[in-house]
Amino acid sequence: MADDALFEFLHMEMVSLVYKDHASMNKQDRATCVSTLEGMGFRVGQGLIERFTKDSPSFKDDLDVMKFICKDFWINVFRKQVDNLRTNHQGTYVLQDNKFALLTQFSSGKQYLEDAPKYLAYSCGLVRGALSNLGMDSVVTAEVSLMPSCKFQVVIQKI
Amino acid sequence: MADDALFEFLHMEMVSLVYKDHASMNKQDRATCVSTLEGMGFRVGQGLIERFTKDSPSFKDDLDVMKFICKDFWINVFRKQVDNLRTNHQGTYVLQDNKFALLTQFSSGKQYLEDAPKYLAYSCGLVRGALSNLGMDSVVTAEVSLMPSCKFQVVIQKI
Repeated sequence: MADDALFEFLHMEMVSLVYKDHASMNKQDRATCVSTLEGMGFRVGQGLIERFTKDSPSFKDDLDVMKFICKDFWINVFRKQVDNLRTNHQGTYVLQDNKFALLTQFSSGKQYLEDAPKYLAYSCGLVRGALSNLGMDSVVTAEVSLMPSCKFQVVIQKI
Repeated sequence: MADDALFEFLHMEMVSLVYKDHASMNKQDRATCVSTLEGMGFRVGQGLIERFTKDSPSFKDDLDVMKFICKDFWINVFRKQVDNLRTNHQGTYVLQDNKFALLTQFSSGKQYLEDAPKYLAYSCGLVRGALSNLGMDSVVTAEVSLMPSCKFQVVIQKI
């Protein structure tokens, strides 16, 4: 329990730090903040996945990697598995978490919906960083329609 | 293990974010960065101690509080106890940690000694925040003479 709090609180502080100087923000500023948080997540994701996969056998395909992200990675970072993983088998994956750890501090429902992106940017970066270190370039976005549930969309970039 | 990494990596990113725009810093700027990090730690410390002490019996004196910080609080946040606690019985406490979690990523010795303060400001804030929520105003400073060992000095402010 302590760990969760340590990470969650620090994450909250970090978001508020990044957004602090942008009280009256235009679209440009908001994009910068999101990308700052995403970048931090990216680098942390790269570091984490190295530790998490240290003793794992190698993955047989992209789906296998995504399953690892949904299960082991998610449990280690967010304390639970992804509830649902869907794919079109063409490089797009949708990860649905019905009770996303970093949104549980908000009241449920739609009241704070517009604040959600702030609190998801870092996590999108985490996933993108983890995948990147496993050799998969991707674009990761998140979408909330009702707190605290959240959908992450991962689109693998074929080279 | 995963938790440690999650917190440590995020902490690293946060320090580098706070210091990013200050490549050629003067003393004033450095003080601002330290105080930003310390402030974040303070608020997180306040939050954490509420959770950690939820089921604890009340403390009988200041020394009792400090023992809790050195043991339970430290284990929850930094994965180990403080190695040594000394006090002059007049409100000054020195907490010595011979292998401080947030310094273990540095090479041991004196090479990066001047960078240490960056990585200790947040933790000083954590301790000050925790104590503050237990009703003790304090000044917390940290000092490193040889990585990764670290001494925190806590001076309780009598009102």
